[in-house]
Amino acid sequence: MSSEDIVRRLADGIGVCINGPNPFDIQVRNPAAYGRIVAHGSLGLGESYMDGWWDCDDLAELFHRISRHQVDRQLRPSAALVAEMLKARLLNLQSLRRARIVATEHYDQTIDAYRAMTDRWITLSCGYWKDAGTLDEAQEAKFSLIARKLRLSAGQRILDVGCGFGAFARFAAERFGCSVVGINVSVEQARAARELAGSLPVEVHVCDYRQTSTYWDGRPFDAAVSTGMFEHVGWRNYRAYMTTVAEVLAPGGLFLLHTVGSNTSSRMNDPWFDRYIFPNGLLPSIAQIGASIEGLFVMEDWHNFGIDYDKTLLAWNANFDRNWPGSRTDRFYRMWRYYLLAAAGMFRSREKQLWQIVLSKGGTRGGYASVR
Amino acid sequence: MSSEDIVRRLADGIGVCINGPNPFDIQVRNPAAYGRIVAHGSLGLGESYMDGWWDCDDLAELFHRISRHQVDRQLRPSAALVAEMLKARLLNLQSLRRARIVATEHYDQTIDAYRAMTDRWITLSCGYWKDAGTLDEAQEAKFSLIARKLRLSAGQRILDVGCGFGAFARFAAERFGCSVVGINVSVEQARAARELAGSLPVEVHVCDYRQTSTYWDGRPFDAAVSTGMFEHVGWRNYRAYMTTVAEVLAPGGLFLLHTVGSNTSSRMNDPWFDRYIFPNGLLPSIAQIGASIEGLFVMEDWHNFGIDYDKTLLAWNANFDRNWPGSRTDRFYRMWRYYLLAAAGMFRSREKQLWQIVLSKGGTRGGYASVR
Repeated sequence: MSSEDIVRRLADGIGVCINGPNPFDIQVRNPAAYGRIVAHGSLGLGESYMDGWWDCDDLAELFHRISRHQVDRQLRPSAALVAEMLKARLLNLQSLRRARIVATEHYDQTIDAYRAMTDRWITLSCGYWKDAGTLDEAQEAKFSLIARKLRLSAGQRILDVGCGFGAFARFAAERFGCSVVGINVSVEQARAARELAGSLPVEVHVCDYRQTSTYWDGRPFDAAVSTGMFEHVGWRNYRAYMTTVAEVLAPGGLFLLHTVGSNTSSRMNDPWFDRYIFPNGLLPSIAQIGASIEGLFVMEDWHNFGIDYDKTLLAWNANFDRNWPGSRTDRFYRMWRYYLLAAAGMFRSREKQLWQIVLSKGGTRGGYASVR
Repeated sequence: MSSEDIVRRLADGIGVCINGPNPFDIQVRNPAAYGRIVAHGSLGLGESYMDGWWDCDDLAELFHRISRHQVDRQLRPSAALVAEMLKARLLNLQSLRRARIVATEHYDQTIDAYRAMTDRWITLSCGYWKDAGTLDEAQEAKFSLIARKLRLSAGQRILDVGCGFGAFARFAAERFGCSVVGINVSVEQARAARELAGSLPVEVHVCDYRQTSTYWDGRPFDAAVSTGMFEHVGWRNYRAYMTTVAEVLAPGGLFLLHTVGSNTSSRMNDPWFDRYIFPNGLLPSIAQIGASIEGLFVMEDWHNFGIDYDKTLLAWNANFDRNWPGSRTDRFYRMWRYYLLAAAGMFRSREKQLWQIVLSKGGTRGGYASVR
């Protein structure tokens, strides 16, 4: 069977037509795309899109179908993919040294794209759309949700693990009277977070979560939060990560983990996302998180609002498309659009989740009432 | 060091005094209790209580302290316990044949005690006390919570795995116009459930969840529920259990799993509870449940209200104490009181949890909004 036949048959199985009339149909511009997709799977699909070999008006809906039917599992893994899988098992892809490289590649070089697409606070994580109409509102609703889940109150000391551009640190300090210690491996983000905080009681340290002596003076934090950072931790380090947070947290203290999650346990990322968007990232499973917290935390509440990431990513794509100054045919633009819309489709298909997990060190006295 | 010294030191470590003045202090009636506790740990503690060798006015608070400080881990496991652990690893303690024996021993022979302690519907699982003032209200609130989480509506066909005395089946049929298929390994419970349902569209089958041909006609169920039954399934069967429920459920259908949970993964029960109350029971962990659902279900919502089991067990104990006709010194009365109050303390300490987990087969379209 030719590569074209294979691709046509796979597309047919998910109701997608090659060069068909629907917005989610694939328009092939260069027939070499077929061979590249069959040979390299997810990587070949993404790279041939970046190169303009095929187009699709509604990429999110196309990926909804691809992801829902797990089409990637129907292609045999290439030798290159097998090598990647071995590497993910054998190496610590998120060692101290590698973690910094990732931050530089992922965040610093693509900062303009992030600024073009996000809300006013450059928030690089899923918004909470329950009562929100705009991206700004959804991000502020998310900060408020986290603050209420953590039961923040004036005078508390909060740790923000991987504080991004500092939006939540500022929010907690300004609205709740907390003092916040943020840590971040990106120099650029740390600088932005300090600027955003102004004279509010927010400290930002450029360091890894494992370097507790850099950011922790020995006084237990009242609460901790980590938003959109656990995806960079890697399965080998989940236990060290949880042990570190438990160590610096007060007994009974709450830790909110906000992370994208996967329905299944894996040790490696999608190959295209790994190469172009989130180097050495890994989406955790319930089983992996469950194992990593045993004996350290009580799981108080597990909230799944993955469907809100579909909305967030569509809003990001609309902003990016409106604000990006470059050509619509250049490779970076196509890569970014592919990232945002493929990811939106994955959340729409329910293959990927967005979890906010409230953990308490040793259990809260008297239990914990869920907040939504 | 003598056994008495060891027990006194352990008690001291959790603020409990031997023959002290506090209601949670231990009053030793027979000094042979020390040796039995040191030699047999949890089993020796419980059996010596049953035999009247020691007393305690506030057993729940005593067990809150024992459980919070994990005192049992400070005693070396006896040879007998090691043998039990091996058995739990090597055998399927919850095979089809054994599962029936458990039902007979656990439920049929102690039915009078259950009737004496529970609400009007003989509900043998944790109530939901958020807005409830009495046990009856807490159990009805729990049924309502499950129905709303499952989004029940008229005409739906619901599977109730381990339907107990049929309280929820009746509730779903009467209040929501659903038809319900209940399965149960206990003949006695199945009969009671049929009687309770009267002419409502409720079928009850005496069979194991694995015997799908007995209770399933091939039409997918719209929703499924399992309340207080997963604790009898056993780690070897978690995957088979989830596979079975997924098989009989409609795509996108919701499954609510209501179970006691443990903070840590284990393959065996507490030895005293195993021998006297829940033979071959096992409390699942997050990691175990997470692994068992991979590729079958999307986890939509994970609600922890373990603290409500403290209240439920205290209410059960008050009812039992009021209604039980036997002597307060007989071994069965003391065993039952010990079960209810030791368990209450374990939930109060946050070592044990009560989880309601909403799972959907392949994910709900458009996401799932948590209900509380």
